Amino acid sequence: MGKACWIWYPGDFEIYHGMRQNFIREERGYGWPAYWHMDDWRKNLRFHTTVNTEKSISFTVYGNGTGHVLCDGKKYRLDREITLEEGNHDITVCIGNMTGLPAIFVEGDIESDPDLWTVDDFIETHPVGFSSLYQDKNVSVEEVPYVHKTIQPINKKMAESVQGNAGLLVEFDHVINGLVIIDTASDGFDVCYGESEAEALDEEWCYYKEEGYAKENDMQRRAFRYVFLPGVKEAEVSADDWVFPHDVKGSFQCSDEKMNRIYQTAVDTYLLCGELFHIDGIKRDRWIWSGDAYESYKVNPYLLFDKEIDKRTVRALRGNDLIRQHINTITDYSMIWVISVLEEYRMDGNKDFLKEQLMKLQTMMAFLMSQRDEEGFFVGREGDWIYLDWAEFDHEGPLCGEQIFFWETLLAMQEIYDILGIEDRSYEDEADMLREKIIFRFFDKDRGFIDSFVSGKNHVTRHANILAILFDFVESEMQEIILDKVLLNDEVPAITTPYFRFYELDALAKAGRLREVYDAILSYWGGMIEEGAVTFWEAYDPTETGNARYAMYGDPFGKSLCHAWGAGPIYLLGRYFLGVRPSSYGYETFEVEPHPELFKSLKADIPVNEGIVHIEINDTELTVTSTKEGGTLVYNGERIPIPVEAL
Amino acid sequence: MGKACWIWYPGDFEIYHGMRQNFIREERGYGWPAYWHMDDWRKNLRFHTTVNTEKSISFTVYGNGTGHVLCDGKKYRLDREITLEEGNHDITVCIGNMTGLPAIFVEGDIESDPDLWTVDDFIETHPVGFSSLYQDKNVSVEEVPYVHKTIQPINKKMAESVQGNAGLLVEFDHVINGLVIIDTASDGFDVCYGESEAEALDEEWCYYKEEGYAKENDMQRRAFRYVFLPGVKEAEVSADDWVFPHDVKGSFQCSDEKMNRIYQTAVDTYLLCGELFHIDGIKRDRWIWSGDAYESYKVNPYLLFDKEIDKRTVRALRGNDLIRQHINTITDYSMIWVISVLEEYRMDGNKDFLKEQLMKLQTMMAFLMSQRDEEGFFVGREGDWIYLDWAEFDHEGPLCGEQIFFWETLLAMQEIYDILGIEDRSYEDEADMLREKIIFRFFDKDRGFIDSFVSGKNHVTRHANILAILFDFVESEMQEIILDKVLLNDEVPAITTPYFRFYELDALAKAGRLREVYDAILSYWGGMIEEGAVTFWEAYDPTETGNARYAMYGDPFGKSLCHAWGAGPIYLLGRYFLGVRPSSYGYETFEVEPHPELFKSLKADIPVNEGIVHIEINDTELTVTSTKEGGTLVYNGERIPIPVEAL
Repeated sequence: MGKACWIWYPGDFEIYHGMRQNFIREERGYGWPAYWHMDDWRKNLRFHTTVNTEKSISFTVYGNGTGHVLCDGKKYRLDREITLEEGNHDITVCIGNMTGLPAIFVEGDIESDPDLWTVDDFIETHPVGFSSLYQDKNVSVEEVPYVHKTIQPINKKMAESVQGNAGLLVEFDHVINGLVIIDTASDGFDVCYGESEAEALDEEWCYYKEEGYAKENDMQRRAFRYVFLPGVKEAEVSADDWVFPHDVKGSFQCSDEKMNRIYQTAVDTYLLCGELFHIDGIKRDRWIWSGDAYESYKVNPYLLFDKEIDKRTVRALRGNDLIRQHINTITDYSMIWVISVLEEYRMDGNKDFLKEQLMKLQTMMAFLMSQRDEEGFFVGREGDWIYLDWAEFDHEGPLCGEQIFFWETLLAMQEIYDILGIEDRSYEDEADMLREKIIFRFFDKDRGFIDSFVSGKNHVTRHANILAILFDFVESEMQEIILDKVLLNDEVPAITTPYFRFYELDALAKAGRLREVYDAILSYWGGMIEEGAVTFWEAYDPTETGNARYAMYGDPFGKSLCHAWGAGPIYLLGRYFLGVRPSSYGYETFEVEPHPELFKSLKADIPVNEGIVHIEINDTELTVTSTKEGGTLVYNGERIPIPVEAL
Repeated sequence: MGKACWIWYPGDFEIYHGMRQNFIREERGYGWPAYWHMDDWRKNLRFHTTVNTEKSISFTVYGNGTGHVLCDGKKYRLDREITLEEGNHDITVCIGNMTGLPAIFVEGDIESDPDLWTVDDFIETHPVGFSSLYQDKNVSVEEVPYVHKTIQPINKKMAESVQGNAGLLVEFDHVINGLVIIDTASDGFDVCYGESEAEALDEEWCYYKEEGYAKENDMQRRAFRYVFLPGVKEAEVSADDWVFPHDVKGSFQCSDEKMNRIYQTAVDTYLLCGELFHIDGIKRDRWIWSGDAYESYKVNPYLLFDKEIDKRTVRALRGNDLIRQHINTITDYSMIWVISVLEEYRMDGNKDFLKEQLMKLQTMMAFLMSQRDEEGFFVGREGDWIYLDWAEFDHEGPLCGEQIFFWETLLAMQEIYDILGIEDRSYEDEADMLREKIIFRFFDKDRGFIDSFVSGKNHVTRHANILAILFDFVESEMQEIILDKVLLNDEVPAITTPYFRFYELDALAKAGRLREVYDAILSYWGGMIEEGAVTFWEAYDPTETGNARYAMYGDPFGKSLCHAWGAGPIYLLGRYFLGVRPSSYGYETFEVEPHPELFKSLKADIPVNEGIVHIEINDTELTVTSTKEGGTLVYNGERIPIPVEAL
């Protein structure tokens, strides 16, 4: 009893909601569905279970769709109690739903316990999909169970727009992702939204605008901090904030107030950008990107340890077989997808998800493997987007960074095979051969890794060199060359995107350059806070001032001011400064290697799967406890078991 | 100007509406989505055109979905007039729609003329799909443009149900497929529907029942001729009949009143069972079946010559690549699908459809070819449904009828290749080899074709023998053996389904046995009319009386009383008795070989693509005229050009 939940075809919940996520982007009155091929969820399903009972049993099947219940070949209605006599029974529920997600909920003496049911689409039979968010039959599987909060503004005043119109300007103390509620006698005015005050006051260029507001019209859920109502003098304005029910487990408080604000702002940013899925930003694009999500996966165990959000994102990104396009159209994002499946297992330690994804991993690997040149380097197909980062690469021939990603992908797949006990070492063999070739072709002792060996230009960018450290592609000697010649060499063009800046700081911290990373956090993220940021931005250039700070992609307010990859400090602080890391899958064992030399005092909680590690630093004292067994404190070359305290 | 219409991804309109069609089945309060895998229409599309203009132009794009218009890289809104200066322009419309059919309509100086636009799903680019039914931007592509007619009943009286309850019984003069309209002070009563009076009066077993009627509730569209309202004494009852806008071109009127009634009843049946698609029946199943549709394709040129309904049905049945299941799960229905594409071309003569279906034909052929045994006979895959007909076949080893279907399929594919100028004769070669093997293994001079050569039982059924004549599989000598030993031999079990009875009469008529066919029409279809049929039934057994006539599949009212395959007389009369047939693709040329010896007098119109052949028989005079060139009268061994008269 009590294990009933909505069940569906595995992965289809994510395809359904992922499509919705990728379709909600809007910009100045037009819609902008994500520009890639979208797979569909299945519309016609059969759920199946058997039961052997020694007494008569009763149960009710609720269905999201049209259909019936077939018990031992006899049809019954949905929504009505069904009674069966003692004995063996074969139960099939047929459900079709053209426009929504076919799903069932069974309660009574038989329940929709996911362990007891399978589902098929008339072709393949699988264990069912389910989510802890949908354990109540009254919660629609087509809706996100947001918590609604009414938020009052902190400021309301008359202001003048760029276009010279006076109107009411309303400010909230934090970023709202929800509806504007307006109580006024007026009608037919525009509602201009802004992540910044400047944006709200620009009637022409504000990203979101509701034209001709009328009370009875449905408003869209939108992200904003300011609202401007041109031509309106009197109105009660509040917000209906739709908050995703996150369970925040991590915390961080130290003697450096600036770092505390950075941490808290990163938390606010992260919680807003992760709901059913990790998305890039809440104003723009609101899409699910594999590369952006990869950085969110890294943050997750240090703040939420939410075992479902990563899985949902992985499933949504991947869609169905057969593969006809790279994930988000980007070759390296397909590779990151493979690496992400392993990343999720390292955190969660549950093999079910690996098994669920195995076939899709294999088809993805076959898709990738088929796109190598005669020498074995990954080159993609005609027209594929070899992205890596927004940077000036020497793109002639295979790109070095892409090869290192591919090497890591091969190793990830091998590790997944090893975990699942699949006796096939071909991915490791491929990786070994590829590594040799990469070093032979791309590594220059005096320069580090070059972009291309074909052009003869020996052009160096940071990217491949960062990945080489991050993925342990190089031994310490080569690592030192990379640090010296590239990462700590100001003559090599700086990384310009926060996306790759995350990788760079990750690599630097991994290489032990914690002081440099600490300072970088204070200057880069701290810089945004000094600019008034309440969430972290998609990009930040300290030299920009005024409205130029909000422009991106040639759009005056195109920059997203609440962007997931801005949450990196949570990961950097937890992973490197507090040094919490799993030493076996699922944190069965874990290590804590804190750096008290960086903090005068500190109190932090870091989740370790079902447990929490508590770290305290007070001048000369370091205290580390855990609510979970398996922890080892690594300090001054010593390895000390971490004491377990009750939760 | 004036060529604008809604445009979509080719085939997706049919997948969308086909799924809706296959999901509307209901039975005593539960839904019954068709029991096979359903492919999905695409949700995210880009429509594309280019224009070169010497002056400034304006146009408006309407979209069914969310999206925008991209002109030379700049985004514009939907629903707003866009103005472009003179010059070359590249126009892309991005449209996403999760729950509906993404489609656009463009009007102004640029129009959504299907000849000028392409569409892609981010993977493949194709010419757009469209339909003459959707040339008005205010008609939703998600709705069927029914004509609504309010119908008053012909009879209203108090009656008592099988369950002993008194109530109002309402009778209509024809079969309604629409809503019941009830005006009464009562509330909360049941509405029992019936194709027959007996069904409406059985509150428990009537197929359709609206429980607890309340005026404000939406009623479902249902097929019925009788309505019973238990417990209601006073009510105004009428019907909102939803009529598909057919353009009926054929007509038939002869001196035999019984035959006239049969023809008219067949027409009524056919018009009800064909809307967007050819379905089996309007009460049950309301699904799109490839085998049922095949017989409807045959009738179509003799009554409607509707060039769209067959194409829509073919597209809906086929869905998308890749193929994972036989059409309707039945192996021979997959074969019939291939044959149907050619059948449609024979009628229409437009190669565009063949080109559109070419890839799907090829994958279907590959799917079928892969399911042969080592000897080359088609055997399907483990678990496939080798149907052919509801009959007692000797199913050990390959089934003869299935092989003859497969042979016809190979030839159909070869003919399609020849039409398209594809220089590949392998299908014909395969067919020739297969034919030899079939005759060697299955033909018995003293018995005709046997079901199985494996079992040694030499079991004979009519089916393979019928198909052998129908598909010209055998020469005249073998045909005579088949007629003598099987088709006209009462010792061979009779065909029991109207589905295969259609094939049998087709074969008999083809073999020149017109008198037998004429008599069969009068006794079988005439028999139903004597039983009070206003549309033809799914099955008819003259020995059954009373309510037993309405039972089928173990269900007291399971039989469909308005079933498409009952419309066969339209085809048999037009094809054989009036002898109208194309002698080249698309009726470019056609022959008329009427049989005045069967009729005292007769007036008939038969469509011949864009023209009509008019045939009149008056005692000794036969008159044949046509509104279209290319006709040849074949009579008494003579070939006479048919005179052309103005329409």
